Amino acid sequence: MEEIASIDAYWRAANYLSVGQIYLLDNPLLREPLRPEHIKPRLLGHWGTVPGINFCFAHLNRIIRRRDQDMIYICGPGHGGPAVVAHSWLEGTYTERYPHITQDAKGMRLLFRQFSFPGGVPSHAAPETPGSIHEGGELGYSLAHAYGAAFDNPGLVVACIIGDGEAETGPLAASWHSNKFLTPGRDGVVLPILHLNGYKIANPTVLARIPEPELVKLLEGYGYRVHIVAGDDPAELHPLMARTLDEVFAEIDEYTAGRERRLPMIVLRTPKGWTGPREVDGVPVEGTWRSHQVPLAQVRTSPEHLRMLEEWMRSYRPEELFDAEGRPTPLVLGEVPEGERRMSANPHANGGELLVPLVLPDFRDYAVPVKEPAVTCSEPTRVLGSYLRDVIAANPRNFRLMGPDETASNRLSAVFEATDKAWDAAVLGTDEHLSREGRVMEVLSEHLCQGWLEGYLLTGRHGLFNCYEAFIHIVDAMFNQHAKWLESAKKIPWRRPVASLNYLLTSHVWRQDHNGFSHQDPGFLDVVVNKKADVVRVYLPPDTNTLLSVADHCLRSRDYVNVIVVGKQPVLDLMSMDEAIAHCTRGAGILRWASTDEGAEPDVVLACAGDVPTMETLAAAALLRAHLPELRVRVVNVVDLMCLQPPSEHPHGLSDHEFDALFTTDKPIIFNFHGYPWLIHRLTYRRNGHDNLHVRGYKEEGTTTTPFDMAMMNDIDRFHLVMDVIDRVPGLRTTASHLRQAMVDARLRARAYTRDHGEDPPEIRDWTWPYD
Amino acid sequence: MEEIASIDAYWRAANYLSVGQIYLLDNPLLREPLRPEHIKPRLLGHWGTVPGINFCFAHLNRIIRRRDQDMIYICGPGHGGPAVVAHSWLEGTYTERYPHITQDAKGMRLLFRQFSFPGGVPSHAAPETPGSIHEGGELGYSLAHAYGAAFDNPGLVVACIIGDGEAETGPLAASWHSNKFLTPGRDGVVLPILHLNGYKIANPTVLARIPEPELVKLLEGYGYRVHIVAGDDPAELHPLMARTLDEVFAEIDEYTAGRERRLPMIVLRTPKGWTGPREVDGVPVEGTWRSHQVPLAQVRTSPEHLRMLEEWMRSYRPEELFDAEGRPTPLVLGEVPEGERRMSANPHANGGELLVPLVLPDFRDYAVPVKEPAVTCSEPTRVLGSYLRDVIAANPRNFRLMGPDETASNRLSAVFEATDKAWDAAVLGTDEHLSREGRVMEVLSEHLCQGWLEGYLLTGRHGLFNCYEAFIHIVDAMFNQHAKWLESAKKIPWRRPVASLNYLLTSHVWRQDHNGFSHQDPGFLDVVVNKKADVVRVYLPPDTNTLLSVADHCLRSRDYVNVIVVGKQPVLDLMSMDEAIAHCTRGAGILRWASTDEGAEPDVVLACAGDVPTMETLAAAALLRAHLPELRVRVVNVVDLMCLQPPSEHPHGLSDHEFDALFTTDKPIIFNFHGYPWLIHRLTYRRNGHDNLHVRGYKEEGTTTTPFDMAMMNDIDRFHLVMDVIDRVPGLRTTASHLRQAMVDARLRARAYTRDHGEDPPEIRDWTWPYD
Repeated sequence: MEEIASIDAYWRAANYLSVGQIYLLDNPLLREPLRPEHIKPRLLGHWGTVPGINFCFAHLNRIIRRRDQDMIYICGPGHGGPAVVAHSWLEGTYTERYPHITQDAKGMRLLFRQFSFPGGVPSHAAPETPGSIHEGGELGYSLAHAYGAAFDNPGLVVACIIGDGEAETGPLAASWHSNKFLTPGRDGVVLPILHLNGYKIANPTVLARIPEPELVKLLEGYGYRVHIVAGDDPAELHPLMARTLDEVFAEIDEYTAGRERRLPMIVLRTPKGWTGPREVDGVPVEGTWRSHQVPLAQVRTSPEHLRMLEEWMRSYRPEELFDAEGRPTPLVLGEVPEGERRMSANPHANGGELLVPLVLPDFRDYAVPVKEPAVTCSEPTRVLGSYLRDVIAANPRNFRLMGPDETASNRLSAVFEATDKAWDAAVLGTDEHLSREGRVMEVLSEHLCQGWLEGYLLTGRHGLFNCYEAFIHIVDAMFNQHAKWLESAKKIPWRRPVASLNYLLTSHVWRQDHNGFSHQDPGFLDVVVNKKADVVRVYLPPDTNTLLSVADHCLRSRDYVNVIVVGKQPVLDLMSMDEAIAHCTRGAGILRWASTDEGAEPDVVLACAGDVPTMETLAAAALLRAHLPELRVRVVNVVDLMCLQPPSEHPHGLSDHEFDALFTTDKPIIFNFHGYPWLIHRLTYRRNGHDNLHVRGYKEEGTTTTPFDMAMMNDIDRFHLVMDVIDRVPGLRTTASHLRQAMVDARLRARAYTRDHGEDPPEIRDWTWPYD
Repeated sequence: MEEIASIDAYWRAANYLSVGQIYLLDNPLLREPLRPEHIKPRLLGHWGTVPGINFCFAHLNRIIRRRDQDMIYICGPGHGGPAVVAHSWLEGTYTERYPHITQDAKGMRLLFRQFSFPGGVPSHAAPETPGSIHEGGELGYSLAHAYGAAFDNPGLVVACIIGDGEAETGPLAASWHSNKFLTPGRDGVVLPILHLNGYKIANPTVLARIPEPELVKLLEGYGYRVHIVAGDDPAELHPLMARTLDEVFAEIDEYTAGRERRLPMIVLRTPKGWTGPREVDGVPVEGTWRSHQVPLAQVRTSPEHLRMLEEWMRSYRPEELFDAEGRPTPLVLGEVPEGERRMSANPHANGGELLVPLVLPDFRDYAVPVKEPAVTCSEPTRVLGSYLRDVIAANPRNFRLMGPDETASNRLSAVFEATDKAWDAAVLGTDEHLSREGRVMEVLSEHLCQGWLEGYLLTGRHGLFNCYEAFIHIVDAMFNQHAKWLESAKKIPWRRPVASLNYLLTSHVWRQDHNGFSHQDPGFLDVVVNKKADVVRVYLPPDTNTLLSVADHCLRSRDYVNVIVVGKQPVLDLMSMDEAIAHCTRGAGILRWASTDEGAEPDVVLACAGDVPTMETLAAAALLRAHLPELRVRVVNVVDLMCLQPPSEHPHGLSDHEFDALFTTDKPIIFNFHGYPWLIHRLTYRRNGHDNLHVRGYKEEGTTTTPFDMAMMNDIDRFHLVMDVIDRVPGLRTTASHLRQAMVDARLRARAYTRDHGEDPPEIRDWTWPYD
């Protein structure tokens, strides 16, 4: 009973502190009667979800102490900001992280004041919140984050509070099935707490309004053992929750020991805005959507609202909770864990503290031999697969490869020599590479791949997400939120750097041979470069060795989002490993062997980024060499897209001097690009040569057709590039009109051949440097 | 029994035709022994899911005939292309839509040849497929599309085949709960058929491998009555499926009559690649992931594979299925419905055929009076809410408003005077505006809002999706796919135009007063303009009357995606309704009252797009008028973003002459933009004045702060714009240095005030034209 008294005191204290954050500018301990000037001028924040979250924290703390349990939380309800901040302040962590917010009346005043205040903290969990790895912005990802945090963390319990609003989202609905990818013993455990307070912003929630037997079936159908804690009387709920958690953790022990297949979970059904004003201005508030945000909205102007607020806050009996100096009393702190056992101070929630660099094999060992450029072919992702196989083997506890059922399709199958695909559901005799120990995570949900990986990275581990290029747009919004997390976290001194989020986008726009138009979209790059330059990197390796060099670089990096785009089909080998390393280090460079400017000023620059556009550019250069030998052509390949931006915009940006040395300031540049052409304009519009820049790229023309036909539909093909050169180099339209017509004819012939034979002409399919 | 024989024959015919599409160039009826030259050079396509889909079609046809049932299908399995095409050809629709593909041997040969062949049809359902409204590209949206199609279509059954791969996605997982938003009697019915063939591309599927009792609980938990049809012997499965469908439709009648709360659904568990090669090269294929794509891969080079293919195809006994001319025999067609009852010819699946234009109230009637520009304020979305209220009232059966629980928050609440929110789960006494008859669809899932709306529009109805701007990125990929559908559908003569997909993005980047950084992202526009110019439109109305004009225009339009971005906070009223109409018609125009160039050539152009940037631009113009009265300033507002592009790139593009007349060719242009600044560069880089263009916009700076502080953080504020003018108009840096310093000071003062008071200075908050 003493235990319960302490839990209740903690809960009341957290609720008090939450209300204070929403309302008070001053008089934090109510040592004097509340006056309008103590109230914030703009009341912003969310109360509804807070008491339930605080209730969970209070009880989880008891379990942590009792079991010396390693535990972190994920707080799904977006607007639980006051709760997570209150929790962290009560545990003392807030003051450790932000020493000016002392754990006393003075600090409490600042704590209240900063909340939803200009320059302060937002009304949801954010990187600034100690103990949180989960942004309370866009909803849907809490449970995936929780599982990601639990992978490879045996002994850790990740308590995941899921709001019933969030539970309506697709990503959350899919995340329940993550239990089929969790391995007892190797991984930690996730404890989902579905918090049904009945309402989202302005509507009831689906899961709160279906018959309870249906809800239980649903959750049992997801594979969980369901415990229900429901009510509105704290005197009943406290012992019930304590008892339930004891049962739940006993079941977790059974699960971990392999004696029980299912994880337990809790359904917590308590009123929205629990313990807040029951009725305001004649309408019910507690237990309805009206308590979602600020239950009493006119506190500064309405004496009645002011009175109700004071009554509300005093109902928590602050005099029992805080001593004369405003410090939490021993009663409040009775069940609070110590040191790193405090959820707000657990190092898993500041994953950089636990980050161990990957043991990386020497990527040079996987190089394909390149004696002459552009003569032999190899499959970049297949070679990368061998490298990743050894990365996995060398890092058996802190690296995972994610993919939506595409790892083999993306030709990374060599990884299955070192590991399997994680799978905790039934296995049949005909299955291959499925096991509980697998380190490849395949599920047909880009949301889960991304969410798991984010959770895994933010708790201090490493990984790579391989995906079809077009469908990575599914996680645009998740990428945005993670990039913003990184942008913010970088400014917070106590947040330690974490491993970068690495995307390998393959099966790209130019090679959707039978999938056609709906599978063609290179626009993720446009989304990525909208984020701050200090967190995003984009690489377009043109061949196998450059891919290896880029991959190694990305796996070593910290706090970035790295996007690597490369095809899975065979490409020409362009560079030896030494050349590849030098090229990737510079970010862009002249392919001298393909150029005819011999170090002098060229007549035209053929620039390229991306494997297929590079091959077409090289073929165009070869055609020009054969047919216009006098023309001085420079071929420039760009592997690090960010180097095109001015250094003032991106740290990888070439200086203007370097840029001009590559691209000239006054010669026509025909830039053949993997993605939508305007991205190149956007990156270069401040460059000297921009007015001479003509970009080819994907212009949203596509269908079910062959690779070269796709190139022709979008005018990125070798023949059209030669036409572009003729059109843009002064004088050539006259002197090379014959060649131009030959190119037009070549396109028509290629197209006719394709229509007749269902494949590209062999001289194009099998082309290698040079044209004879 | 005769019935079953006919169903089986149909199934065998559809399977035969599906295999033929994947493999054959010639010899479609196997009238001669199969030879390598009959085989396609590249084997592309997917067999695994096909026999199950064909099985469903065969049996659904029987029910349609028996009940004279109005029914369409949604085929979720992405790569069921051969099946849906075969179905349509057998029903005769393919030949009606594509007369050269005759329903005989000659047409069958062409049908086979075109599949996954250059210039042919893709290996998944696409706009080209008669009877389909669902792109088989990116997976996850079948069930949401099905519900969207069923809304307001009483009497219609939408059979939705869901692959077990797709079922792992988040959007699909959330879509099951759509049954809580369906109203018996008013709406049609969805019949989900979860097709468990056990595998996705290379892995087993979660739902196929959990214990069956768990699966049943899950689906019952989603609120369905579950019927299981499982096995691999057609002789058993045919009668079982027929019996099950009879039961299911009896239950549907109960549901429709309101006597049963739950919809029925079917779990169809059959082998992947059913009836295909059992074993190839010594490994099992039928019933495993190896049958996902092309079970026999070496048919052209391996005589053994060739023999197996012939054996496989002959196992369907084509001689029973097609007559001497290659026409389907009466046995095959015995259960095929007629006319518009054929699912491939049902007009609901070519919604434009059924499209009834909206009855629209005169938007002018909702105008706010504007006697003087920029002096009074109104709330654009609140006024729009009144207009939408009357749109809903006037169109009680074919217009819906979708939103992820934000309709009230977005201040469209007036619509609740005309309708409620659709809700078929429990209702409590404290609830407001919930009913089965509601026409506002609120669920905390942008995926569901988008999927429902797509299904609703593609079956010939109208709607609007209101959403927070940042979180619309959740549906980037869905937008992409829908835009591509429209791009393709426009080229198909028999596809009739459908109503546009209208987005109202509010709660935008500049007004996230307490939500902060994670809620700030105007980048959806960048995603949108990547799509073809003939399907996308972007509007940024600066005030209430322009919003009304734009909304009316969008609701009348066809085959577009219209994006309207406008805040929900009060903005200055700039234009009378007549002025607003003229302005919106032009797309961009000079605000003469705010300009000081008096029709002459200005010294500087202040351009703006978006409500908040426009207000800051006007304030800057007022400051310049007050402090630099000699300076000739022109203020240009852009409401239709696409008019910035050259007319060669977008049909709304201003001619160069018009553009130059607005923006000049040689004067500095300070463009204050709502979104990421480079979008303006991208749209204008071919314009004459581009080199003089300086764009301000969101540069990814944000936190929890006041509106004006947000503007200052990103340099779009009035004071900074004045500084920009001084920096860019020749001579002003010297002559107006005092004013420039005053602006710097004003920014510092504003910031300090905000930090102290928690809100913007009153002279900024309440500013109206002009500055005195």
